Amino acid sequence: MSARSIARKPVVNEEEVLKILEDFGRKIAQQIIEGRSPKIEIPVRTLSNTIWDKETKILRLGPRKAVREFFDMGEAKKFMQTVLMLSLIVKARREGDYPTIRDLYYTGKHTITYIDEFGRRRREETWDDQRESNSVIQDIEVATGLLREHMGIMHDAKGKIVGNVIVRSKGYEIDLSRLGSGAYAVPPNVDKLEILRVDADYVLVVEKDAIFERLNEEEFWRKHNCVLITGKGQPDRATRRMVRRLWEEFGLPVYVLTDADPYGFYIYSVYRSGSISLSYESELLATPEARFLGLTVTDIEEYKIPRNYIIKATDRDLKRAKELMNYPWFRESKEWMRQLKLFLKKKEKVEIEALSGHGFKFLTQVYIPEKIKQRKWII
Amino acid sequence: MSARSIARKPVVNEEEVLKILEDFGRKIAQQIIEGRSPKIEIPVRTLSNTIWDKETKILRLGPRKAVREFFDMGEAKKFMQTVLMLSLIVKARREGDYPTIRDLYYTGKHTITYIDEFGRRRREETWDDQRESNSVIQDIEVATGLLREHMGIMHDAKGKIVGNVIVRSKGYEIDLSRLGSGAYAVPPNVDKLEILRVDADYVLVVEKDAIFERLNEEEFWRKHNCVLITGKGQPDRATRRMVRRLWEEFGLPVYVLTDADPYGFYIYSVYRSGSISLSYESELLATPEARFLGLTVTDIEEYKIPRNYIIKATDRDLKRAKELMNYPWFRESKEWMRQLKLFLKKKEKVEIEALSGHGFKFLTQVYIPEKIKQRKWII
Repeated sequence: MSARSIARKPVVNEEEVLKILEDFGRKIAQQIIEGRSPKIEIPVRTLSNTIWDKETKILRLGPRKAVREFFDMGEAKKFMQTVLMLSLIVKARREGDYPTIRDLYYTGKHTITYIDEFGRRRREETWDDQRESNSVIQDIEVATGLLREHMGIMHDAKGKIVGNVIVRSKGYEIDLSRLGSGAYAVPPNVDKLEILRVDADYVLVVEKDAIFERLNEEEFWRKHNCVLITGKGQPDRATRRMVRRLWEEFGLPVYVLTDADPYGFYIYSVYRSGSISLSYESELLATPEARFLGLTVTDIEEYKIPRNYIIKATDRDLKRAKELMNYPWFRESKEWMRQLKLFLKKKEKVEIEALSGHGFKFLTQVYIPEKIKQRKWII
Repeated sequence: MSARSIARKPVVNEEEVLKILEDFGRKIAQQIIEGRSPKIEIPVRTLSNTIWDKETKILRLGPRKAVREFFDMGEAKKFMQTVLMLSLIVKARREGDYPTIRDLYYTGKHTITYIDEFGRRRREETWDDQRESNSVIQDIEVATGLLREHMGIMHDAKGKIVGNVIVRSKGYEIDLSRLGSGAYAVPPNVDKLEILRVDADYVLVVEKDAIFERLNEEEFWRKHNCVLITGKGQPDRATRRMVRRLWEEFGLPVYVLTDADPYGFYIYSVYRSGSISLSYESELLATPEARFLGLTVTDIEEYKIPRNYIIKATDRDLKRAKELMNYPWFRESKEWMRQLKLFLKKKEKVEIEALSGHGFKFLTQVYIPEKIKQRKWII
């Protein structure tokens, strides 16, 4: 089941993005011009408005929207912050700048001096810390349906990818199979990449960067005809978007390889279903058919991991495992519940590198290919 | 002063590496065959054997060597660990495997059962944690003069690079100016790269990944004819080796751009002089002519950073600044001592993104080019 296809076009281009942002601002201006009280409608980003969509198997925002009114003492500041941030982003897009979220924080930060109702001179900061400015960026994301990446906002990008994939970026065709010992560092805005061609049977997502480097140096992806990618632990948005696109546009199965511990299980679940705190992203970033390739808790016996390789679970691990058991996508999986219960009972975890006890080649020549062939993944 | 040159050959290839490692082991075997008490000579890696070489401006190991004897109760275990690790590395090189340091830890970890002098059955682990196995890897590094990267040992690789640079890796020529919005992820073993061609005036090392992404998206490196690289905060060894090679082999000046805080100053000093705890690496990883481009403490006034952008230094910052003042490469620089004293007096720090207060383009169109042109860096 090799995917050899030509990609759909990415969702957004620079002109569209600018238009969506300008329209958002224009609506506010229009209200003022017409003498109405200006207000902004923004989908609510709280947990109570987060829905687990059983059918599509992703977390997404519910229907609730908040109205942010300028002439409301409790909301005037947030209204101002939203419009301020919008104006900074629009300015950056018009002038071809790519500020970071931290740049936006500083650029928008200034002191407003005003006279209050008692005639006293008062001073207030537009925002005090980056949480406030980040929060309005998120509001603009949910209000416009654009990711901040689409708006040209820069941030750390952790992902690396190699494989029989050809992408086009800024007019250059980049062959991700011709990078030698290096890799392609995934750019922050994955949707500006065109994925022109993929010739692979599956996507292998590895939790650990060092394992990625090892598999790349050994050219595992070439021998096993897969795309190899890492988000270095807890993945960033760009890596998740890249995995999602490979699955969505090319129909590739996605396998996630992590340690056998709740931290690893959660990383799988972020690739698969998204994170609870940022559920609005999931519709673009989650890969709801991602498969967990291991290590599982039962692998500890199955693969005869020596006793002295096993690590005692910490209280934090146990707490985390209990939390996972409450997430709907774990709860509705019998196999996952079995694994998590066993973890809580045995209180043992193990790292992927423990497989090296069976020889350096065991992971690549036995574990991964066998598990895939025998369909021994978990979902 | 543009560097357009053809590179020297990298120092090591796979066959040489294997030979050096085998020779190291053969010497030990030879002693046993000849009926002598086997011993290994290993340069001492302690602080007291670390020398600040004023002339070459790098930290390096002094002349002291320790003799590790097998027939010495206090050293027999460490002797065993060294030979065990050496055998694992030699095996991996012979079989073309690229284990991570964690793989080596697990592969070598096993329980030795023996009968002690009182006839009791005893059990001991070859090593208890990864610090022990890492420590013998370092011993093998200093004893052979090879970096672990040369020995094919994998680990996280944080670096990203773009610019008018052509490298060759595994037979592929990779043009680092044709990667679009992405970048080349620096591989762990930089010495397996051939740097074929560099057409640039300087190397710009940026501390922060998000700033790297921004400068890359804006194609700063193309407009200003430089090589852009980041090690994402505290740099890893591969990024430092890459910077060093660009300086050493192509004569490019190296500028380091960080926040104005002791953490940023220390990052500069790691690129320039190496880290105190791993001084033996500096001879290959340090770039002793690296220049600090800022931000400096005096820049806070010079560039009129608004008061509300300034962050109060923490106690930890102050402690760190005092430590830096004891490092020889800071101590022998009048300008650095002035900056650090001012920092301790003002107790203020500022981030590179604070320059965005003068507009998103200020950093790239004013700050960096002006500082370089006016030679306003610090060394």
